[in-house]
Amino acid sequence: MMDREKVTSELSVKTPSKIILLVMDGLGGLPINGQTALQAAKTPNLDTLASQSVCGLTDPVFMGITPGSGPAHLSLFGYDPTRYTLGRGILEAMGIGVDVGTYDLVARGNFATLKDGLITDRRAGRIPSDENAALCEKINLELDPIEETEVTLFPGKEHRFVVRFRGRGLTASLSDADPQKNNKPPVFTLAQNKDGHRSAKIVNAFIDKTTDILQGSPRANSILLRGFSKFPSLPTMDRLFQLNPVAVAHYPMYRGLAKLVGMKLAEVGPTIEDVFSTTEKVYAKFNFFYLHVKKPDAAGEDGCYEEKIKAISETDTFIPRLLALKPDVLVVTSDHSTPCLLKSHSWHPNPFLLHSRTAQQDQVSEFSEIQCASGYLGRFPALYAMTLILAHAEKLKKYGA
Amino acid sequence: MMDREKVTSELSVKTPSKIILLVMDGLGGLPINGQTALQAAKTPNLDTLASQSVCGLTDPVFMGITPGSGPAHLSLFGYDPTRYTLGRGILEAMGIGVDVGTYDLVARGNFATLKDGLITDRRAGRIPSDENAALCEKINLELDPIEETEVTLFPGKEHRFVVRFRGRGLTASLSDADPQKNNKPPVFTLAQNKDGHRSAKIVNAFIDKTTDILQGSPRANSILLRGFSKFPSLPTMDRLFQLNPVAVAHYPMYRGLAKLVGMKLAEVGPTIEDVFSTTEKVYAKFNFFYLHVKKPDAAGEDGCYEEKIKAISETDTFIPRLLALKPDVLVVTSDHSTPCLLKSHSWHPNPFLLHSRTAQQDQVSEFSEIQCASGYLGRFPALYAMTLILAHAEKLKKYGA
Repeated sequence: MMDREKVTSELSVKTPSKIILLVMDGLGGLPINGQTALQAAKTPNLDTLASQSVCGLTDPVFMGITPGSGPAHLSLFGYDPTRYTLGRGILEAMGIGVDVGTYDLVARGNFATLKDGLITDRRAGRIPSDENAALCEKINLELDPIEETEVTLFPGKEHRFVVRFRGRGLTASLSDADPQKNNKPPVFTLAQNKDGHRSAKIVNAFIDKTTDILQGSPRANSILLRGFSKFPSLPTMDRLFQLNPVAVAHYPMYRGLAKLVGMKLAEVGPTIEDVFSTTEKVYAKFNFFYLHVKKPDAAGEDGCYEEKIKAISETDTFIPRLLALKPDVLVVTSDHSTPCLLKSHSWHPNPFLLHSRTAQQDQVSEFSEIQCASGYLGRFPALYAMTLILAHAEKLKKYGA
Repeated sequence: MMDREKVTSELSVKTPSKIILLVMDGLGGLPINGQTALQAAKTPNLDTLASQSVCGLTDPVFMGITPGSGPAHLSLFGYDPTRYTLGRGILEAMGIGVDVGTYDLVARGNFATLKDGLITDRRAGRIPSDENAALCEKINLELDPIEETEVTLFPGKEHRFVVRFRGRGLTASLSDADPQKNNKPPVFTLAQNKDGHRSAKIVNAFIDKTTDILQGSPRANSILLRGFSKFPSLPTMDRLFQLNPVAVAHYPMYRGLAKLVGMKLAEVGPTIEDVFSTTEKVYAKFNFFYLHVKKPDAAGEDGCYEEKIKAISETDTFIPRLLALKPDVLVVTSDHSTPCLLKSHSWHPNPFLLHSRTAQQDQVSEFSEIQCASGYLGRFPALYAMTLILAHAEKLKKYGA
């Protein structure tokens, strides 16, 4: 019976042809005053490109499922997101360069404000990153191993950190130690099965000790932990698809994800232009380029329709620079939709555009959610995007005789 | 979980309703000067038919996968091509009427020219078929059994033959004994797992002995073997779908494939008209007619755009004769696409048209790749074509109560 990954992998061949996958995070949306942000944005380059491409709509997991960034990206990279499941902790950890080993347990953390027995601010007033770094250092210095488990904090941006528990016998079957909303009492982690009791005890002891160490700190006097996870073992894109891939992504989450599937990580600044200038710089060295533009998602999450329009319009201006590189395949799509109306990820499918010499051009003349629905590719699981991409780059042999 | 084959099979009933499946091999293509061959061809009958039918696009295996003729046809016949895999040797063997038993190993062969230790022509200058037949006879006469394995050659057209190894303990896990390109040294077969060592030894001894026998022959003085395969066991269309099917196909490959799924084989000449006149002749005796028109694929493989247009236009003229038979279901589609641009099979989906009293007519008014994309059937796996066909022929009972 069909194993998509196995079939695709067996047919993949190494060729010099080059592929650019531009992910405009959270691009898809819902109309506000009759237009989605993508429709309202000034996108002359994407529209021209769409009219010279084959288009469609993709479902990241399956119809109706709202994906996190992990499953949404895995799917686009050709990994079945229901087969390979990733904790958010591991993504965050890898993204900020934390060394995570086979036995390690990691989680995402927030510094938070505890007052009168309630978590009054889950983000500790978004403390500056250097205050965060100082607190992590202080905790790392004062904290002793717990049941032979060494615990280390790694500061992220603002109030965010990653914690790594290094020791034997740890499991990730733990609930989040996070009340999820402000003005609720702190929550300890709970083992989700009987294997998790010892790990839960160690994590909760760590929360207690850290809260003690943080006493006296005005805002950041408590911590929340979520997304407990261990190191997942994924076949690399090199092994699966014979690709030599690089990620041109600035944010830790996406760098972490790219690293998990075996991509090299390019050094890239925070602006939209940085993504494109970095791609130009590293273009000679790889044959698969994952470009990540975060802003449409961030604007969608904030419900800032105008910001989302601006981010999309700005990205559009760099399309000619991608085309100037003459990739054999250029795909523009999103990992998931983030409608401003919902201020969150959503289950709506992603507009998808594939430009290649071997693509059947369709009648889509504007890169939008609605026009992509009438594209030649139809509506399809994002998981098939990679097989399609490889086919158009002529990197797949014939199946059977 | 759903087993499509099991469900379809359990619901299938014998009825007198008649189905014609016209496969225009390699029909789908990519535009050249703005038009695919199908668009450029003169197809007034197919266009009228499309406007009175339900249309769509099919993926032979899954999106992005380029199928060989075997998987592409199996899929159309309702057999999962990732579940039933076929060696090309077995198809070729059955197509030329070779008796293949359970223990037999077969392969496709070429006569080739060996000069100064290099294969200088993999097709021995396409020797005439009668020279081929004489050589096969000579080899069959002079060759003794090898390790109790009887080896027989069966001539095909020009330089092609099938070889059958008849004996116990043979396996098909053997690499091709074919350098694939001219001006490379000959290649022996290699066992692909430890079970294959004895079979490899027998095959390689056969190559040696045959090369000796061919010494002195000017062009055909060497052989190449590929597609080692054994007899696959497929449920017949009669058993699966309660059909009484016949193949109206001239070429060995397609006759072999039809035979594998239990079709009767009609005697049919090489022209396009032969397909239609033979169908008329045998129409009373069967209720499922697989019609195979090879020319669009052959022209696509050669990159002959004008030839492909001509073959499609010619086929179109016979559509009224099919309609005159008043089949309950008439389907026109291809097994896979063969764009002249690529000169090979491709992964692009097939235009699909289903004409029946029970079909939901859509707004497709021209039988083309692009128009079919907006058909009512949408884009779907070719594997579901048979279920759809049976349904429209009212040969499927209700599922569940």
